[in-house]
Amino acid sequence: MVRRPRRKLYESDSAGKAAREMGLLESIEGPGDLERLTLDECEQLAAEIRAELIADVSKTGGHLGPNLGVVELTTAIHRTFSSPRDTILFDVGHQAYVHKMVTGRSGDFGTLRQLGGLSGYPARAESPHDVIENSHASTSLSWADGIAKAYQISGESDRSVVAVIGDGALTGGMAWEALNNIAADGSATHRRLVIIVNDNGRSYAPTVGGFAQHLDMLRTSAGYEKLLQWGKSALQRGGAPGRFAYDALHGFKKGVKDMVAPQGMFEDLGLKYIGPVDGHDQDMLERALAQAKGYAGPVIVHAMTQKGRGYAPAMADEADQFHSVGVINPETGLPMSPSGARSWTKEFGDELVRLAEGRDDLVAVTAAMMLPVGLQKFASKFPGRVFDVGIAEQHAVTSAAGLAFGGMHPVVCLYSTFLNRAFDQLLMDVALHRAGVTFVLDRSGVTGPDGASHHGMWDLALLQAVPHAHVAAPRDSTRLREELGEAVTIDDAPSVVRFSRGSVGPDVEASVRLDDGVDVLARGGSDVLIVSVGALADRALEVQARLADEGIGATVIDPRWVLPVPASVIELAARHSLVAVLEDGVRSGGVGARVRHDLRDAGLRQGVAELGLPAEFLPQGTREEILKFAGLDVETLTKRILSEVSDLRG
Amino acid sequence: MVRRPRRKLYESDSAGKAAREMGLLESIEGPGDLERLTLDECEQLAAEIRAELIADVSKTGGHLGPNLGVVELTTAIHRTFSSPRDTILFDVGHQAYVHKMVTGRSGDFGTLRQLGGLSGYPARAESPHDVIENSHASTSLSWADGIAKAYQISGESDRSVVAVIGDGALTGGMAWEALNNIAADGSATHRRLVIIVNDNGRSYAPTVGGFAQHLDMLRTSAGYEKLLQWGKSALQRGGAPGRFAYDALHGFKKGVKDMVAPQGMFEDLGLKYIGPVDGHDQDMLERALAQAKGYAGPVIVHAMTQKGRGYAPAMADEADQFHSVGVINPETGLPMSPSGARSWTKEFGDELVRLAEGRDDLVAVTAAMMLPVGLQKFASKFPGRVFDVGIAEQHAVTSAAGLAFGGMHPVVCLYSTFLNRAFDQLLMDVALHRAGVTFVLDRSGVTGPDGASHHGMWDLALLQAVPHAHVAAPRDSTRLREELGEAVTIDDAPSVVRFSRGSVGPDVEASVRLDDGVDVLARGGSDVLIVSVGALADRALEVQARLADEGIGATVIDPRWVLPVPASVIELAARHSLVAVLEDGVRSGGVGARVRHDLRDAGLRQGVAELGLPAEFLPQGTREEILKFAGLDVETLTKRILSEVSDLRG
Repeated sequence: MVRRPRRKLYESDSAGKAAREMGLLESIEGPGDLERLTLDECEQLAAEIRAELIADVSKTGGHLGPNLGVVELTTAIHRTFSSPRDTILFDVGHQAYVHKMVTGRSGDFGTLRQLGGLSGYPARAESPHDVIENSHASTSLSWADGIAKAYQISGESDRSVVAVIGDGALTGGMAWEALNNIAADGSATHRRLVIIVNDNGRSYAPTVGGFAQHLDMLRTSAGYEKLLQWGKSALQRGGAPGRFAYDALHGFKKGVKDMVAPQGMFEDLGLKYIGPVDGHDQDMLERALAQAKGYAGPVIVHAMTQKGRGYAPAMADEADQFHSVGVINPETGLPMSPSGARSWTKEFGDELVRLAEGRDDLVAVTAAMMLPVGLQKFASKFPGRVFDVGIAEQHAVTSAAGLAFGGMHPVVCLYSTFLNRAFDQLLMDVALHRAGVTFVLDRSGVTGPDGASHHGMWDLALLQAVPHAHVAAPRDSTRLREELGEAVTIDDAPSVVRFSRGSVGPDVEASVRLDDGVDVLARGGSDVLIVSVGALADRALEVQARLADEGIGATVIDPRWVLPVPASVIELAARHSLVAVLEDGVRSGGVGARVRHDLRDAGLRQGVAELGLPAEFLPQGTREEILKFAGLDVETLTKRILSEVSDLRG
Repeated sequence: MVRRPRRKLYESDSAGKAAREMGLLESIEGPGDLERLTLDECEQLAAEIRAELIADVSKTGGHLGPNLGVVELTTAIHRTFSSPRDTILFDVGHQAYVHKMVTGRSGDFGTLRQLGGLSGYPARAESPHDVIENSHASTSLSWADGIAKAYQISGESDRSVVAVIGDGALTGGMAWEALNNIAADGSATHRRLVIIVNDNGRSYAPTVGGFAQHLDMLRTSAGYEKLLQWGKSALQRGGAPGRFAYDALHGFKKGVKDMVAPQGMFEDLGLKYIGPVDGHDQDMLERALAQAKGYAGPVIVHAMTQKGRGYAPAMADEADQFHSVGVINPETGLPMSPSGARSWTKEFGDELVRLAEGRDDLVAVTAAMMLPVGLQKFASKFPGRVFDVGIAEQHAVTSAAGLAFGGMHPVVCLYSTFLNRAFDQLLMDVALHRAGVTFVLDRSGVTGPDGASHHGMWDLALLQAVPHAHVAAPRDSTRLREELGEAVTIDDAPSVVRFSRGSVGPDVEASVRLDDGVDVLARGGSDVLIVSVGALADRALEVQARLADEGIGATVIDPRWVLPVPASVIELAARHSLVAVLEDGVRSGGVGARVRHDLRDAGLRQGVAELGLPAEFLPQGTREEILKFAGLDVETLTKRILSEVSDLRG
């Protein structure tokens, strides 16, 4: 993939420091400043950017690997197109750090992903150069399609729309829907639409699917090898002949249509294709982009990049090449504070392996997230029983319904926020068909530094509208193991186990378990029944203690299975004046709303306080900061319950 | 597309009657009975089936056109594979009537789509031959993927899985996700997976997109023409030589890989391809299917069919070839009782044209439903401002966000139930980005004969979890025009106008409109405030009259904009003892739940009765039958409110 050897400038911290001292990056206040650079200076700038990325992201955590891979690509785009008049779109958005650096934000990286700080994704509030804030994959081509159509209708068809999309995001169905439309409309409504495929052969892990194999074929075909050979020797002769050879090679004189490389599927769809191009060769990249810019119709530029490029620890990590890191030592790439605490993810992964050892029918499904959802151990133990479907949540869910029909019990492992992509499939393919499929929703509720689109706060509201759904929210490791074990025995309905991001706290033992599995964590009086959902149990107990200080007696329970609402929750509610439901999901239509609903159906008129998240987009920050922001810290919760109690008494 | 002329047996009712009298169909009690038929008898059976379809569906209404197109295909499948041991999957499912006829249900078509009658889709409760009940498109390949994997794991890899998918459904992204996975896994997990592309060049209307053009290329390529010529002359020579010619032609001896037709995208993905095959030539079809069955790995059979085949009125209808019909005269194809009533769809379509005449920035988006959602007039007046994206709701919504970013105001027209497919895009691309996009949800609430997966009952529960969303539910034509006009002025958030299926009733005038747009329909006392959502207004007034007979005074209001809940709804609620919210959406998390929520936030403790639909899958039937089933008929509503009032007084 590497066209020619480069000096390895930035592979040690001292070299990085040296690059930083050179100070080209400091002079870049906006994309306009990039234009005056020579190609040599671009190479120098790339070195500085990499050094900055490693230095900054090792302190804050963030998507290091993907950004190291798109340094030249990003500067080439900004030197070829004129943002914001030309619209530049980043799919997923976690690879936009370099874009942020060259659009006036390189000084802000110390605050990356912190409350009030720089977003880890494009953010319209930060810059007119940012467009798509949604961190969910595969959307950029649809955005590009709409924007290009709008420019065409409003007579601004000279404005280019550039979408940068990874090979992984192309496994998502909506990218295909967009390609299908872009190809069909062609130059009529998409005169200046450039799709850059940022192909590193891996999204999180190596990209899966027939299409990935097709991209691989494009990369490794004889035609491409020949192109490299020819281009290299022509360029080595230098000067104008090199230029001429490049142009001839790329069919510049003959139009984009007749180029050398095999075009395959893109061509079959009716899309023009330029590439493959070495995504770390500034000159080649800029020539390809200039050619694409000049073409009057939608065109694909296929750029090959290396995730983690130029950072030895990342390039040495076969598993995910530092896709996303916490705080690390910049020299070694090792975590700075390897905590002894176990993560929810790891607890789940280990337990699933244990369960699978006793059951041949247990299979696992992931959407391009084998490692992040904790399935690597399962995958190595049971390679024939795990399916990574690519960034394709819809397919993951319906395929799981099929697996269940065929006699398996599938466990579909997703981040909670990505379940939104497959609501219809959960409802219509799993629930309607009474398929026994278990969903494990990692990163549920308030997550933290990834901001609005990563909070897993919609799952409970969606799930309560799904007939037959069983939902568990474990409060600790023991309950996670227990509830997962129960979930995989449900063979006639969707079952869901949702848990938080990060470390799991110490176990919170129950004083008694009721017949229907509801855990009573503490009894303290008949004023308030606190129903705690999942990992909020520890703070529910703290709230109880504070209420006791105020003379209010509260009982704290963890229903364990929060949907459908267990009968004993309703029975207990009948013996308290107020029911307070603590959950980190949107409170409209959440567990609290359902508890109230069931109370009313039982003819009970207790007050219910639904203490969940507002139906608003929440900012980035630590989990605790965001819970406080939403009024779910101990102090605010106590005040809110006290106020409800005094209302009832008043 | 037609390989040789056929006798036009079934193009008049008398011919149809003659065919029915021949009685082959009556002898088919299951797919096993098909095997003993000769090819000539198959042709005879096809005639009988078409006659039955026309006779029966003209009485009940249903998906006539698609089923007339798959008669030979369906019998060929059942003669080649052994259902239910082999699993046969129909994408969308509305083309499964013929399948039902040959699996023992031909006598039940008089009850098609009626309460307690035969479903218009496969239904597991009806037959072990039915698998997918979900009528939402593009799912069958994911089902097939999962089922084939399960058979492989459980050592039953001799069981074939056959998915029948239309060219239209292939425009849906999840079909692409599945193809990508099926191609990648290949024969390792999909030894017997046959995908039959039922290509009629149109899903509802002619299929759009680059892929459709690619299919068209496959159909019309020189290779195919040559195949037809050769095949025809070889077969005309008759007997074994014909067979030999066919096998040679299809590369039978050389393996499936080296066939004559251009394979294009399927091949690029790594999928074997057989075709194109004339989907009305039983012999050719069965040979192709036998070849596919024998291949150890996933294979695509591309069958060309004609929608409406053999029924003159359908074939003459360029617009949608009788995709779905009401009760019609079987001879003429004309509706039996052309009612004078106007439909919600038509009212909307006309008003959108009127609005668009005054605003250049109004554009419309549809997902393969130009005609069913009422956009044909708009399309002919403003051809440059309407976009049919194929069966691709995800793309429709995000592309609309892009259109809004580029300065347009898009109106995305969907059936309510299909919004489920694009919840993530609505939330993350439209709402998070504060894009001014209007959604028009036709067939909202209880719809009727299409059953569980077509009821548009989830929209309100989903929408109340979407920050910034504005939702209107017009009660009549005047309000539809009015609220649509208001919706398209909202330029910083998603706005939604949802209405019912079928005819719109007479206008229900308000006695007074409050400052925030809430309509008071009738004042009658302070016992109950009835909040009526959308088309339930007339029954709300009837309930009020019944309550008055019982001495209970009720006020009836239509908030017009139901989300966010207007302030005056809360103010009025404060002056009544009970608030009853009537809505035909799932009551968990619906408008009623939100009204209660806002009441509580305002410190009010009135009782709230959420009178909506249960979170259950509802059966098919007339709208009125289903409303009664769910307790939303006048009598039950009255009783429920009386019981709440007496509870409160007790």
